[in-house]
Amino acid sequence: MRHRTRALVLAAFASGSLFLAANNVPLGRTAQASKADRALIEAVLSAQQSAWNDGNVNAFLEGYWHSEDLTFSGSDGISRGFNAVRERYEKTYPDRQAMGRLDFSDLQIRALGPDAALVLGHWRLRREKGDIGGVFSLVFERFPEGWRIIHDHTSVVGAAASHQSQD
Amino acid sequence: MRHRTRALVLAAFASGSLFLAANNVPLGRTAQASKADRALIEAVLSAQQSAWNDGNVNAFLEGYWHSEDLTFSGSDGISRGFNAVRERYEKTYPDRQAMGRLDFSDLQIRALGPDAALVLGHWRLRREKGDIGGVFSLVFERFPEGWRIIHDHTSVVGAAASHQSQD
Repeated sequence: MRHRTRALVLAAFASGSLFLAANNVPLGRTAQASKADRALIEAVLSAQQSAWNDGNVNAFLEGYWHSEDLTFSGSDGISRGFNAVRERYEKTYPDRQAMGRLDFSDLQIRALGPDAALVLGHWRLRREKGDIGGVFSLVFERFPEGWRIIHDHTSVVGAAASHQSQD
Repeated sequence: MRHRTRALVLAAFASGSLFLAANNVPLGRTAQASKADRALIEAVLSAQQSAWNDGNVNAFLEGYWHSEDLTFSGSDGISRGFNAVRERYEKTYPDRQAMGRLDFSDLQIRALGPDAALVLGHWRLRREKGDIGGVFSLVFERFPEGWRIIHDHTSVVGAAASHQSQD
């Protein structure tokens, strides 16, 4: 009886693992992230937006993985490492006027497994010298301290698009 | 004895699942994809490059997930669905001259879980009217038929960068 109980517990555990794996890591289809994970990821992006609009680049950068392996891709190529990403932001946006007012919109959050997610969205900077905006693709990973961006690919849409069509 | 054996088999299975999960889905750090998965993903990209250079856009598109949920982000925004991505390629590259000769380089492949990976790299098109190139971020998922791109974010670097710096 003791062994039978143990077997049942282990069977329940094993089938539970399989069930969880099948739910969280679907093979061959993109899954919508859980409601809880979507809320946590949206909170990171909402905090970034608020920090930016307070002119606080350091607080904005909290959303990123503080690692040598953080990557940022854009129209100036690939920046590698948290320090390089911070320097890129500090150089591109030296003051409140350059930073403008940031809005993220049309977020789409997809699970890529139990601890990773892909977030697509639009960004817009309202600035005195003219608005600018575009699209981003963010890869988030779940860390003990919360979800963080491990890769950011950001593009300008509009100005850059009309330029590219001349090629 | 029968139950003891079953318990041991289940215990081995359960601990095996945990061990695999711990190896494939690291919490809080980006893992290098396994050698086997890297080879499979590189093969998809190599087949895309060959198909492109043979002027075969349909074969090139085989690397993408054939789904309404496929997404492609770039300087003209976000295209959604395999048909929209195909139309974008057919419109942007109507003939061999527009397609030029494609090279992918500097591939970096990172596991995002057991069935997803992030691939960063550079692309270059050598064309009579002038070369063009940039960076891409590809999210791959493992399907029964193999690894496929479920999201592509591609940017031009150089021309677009000099344009953007005028903003």
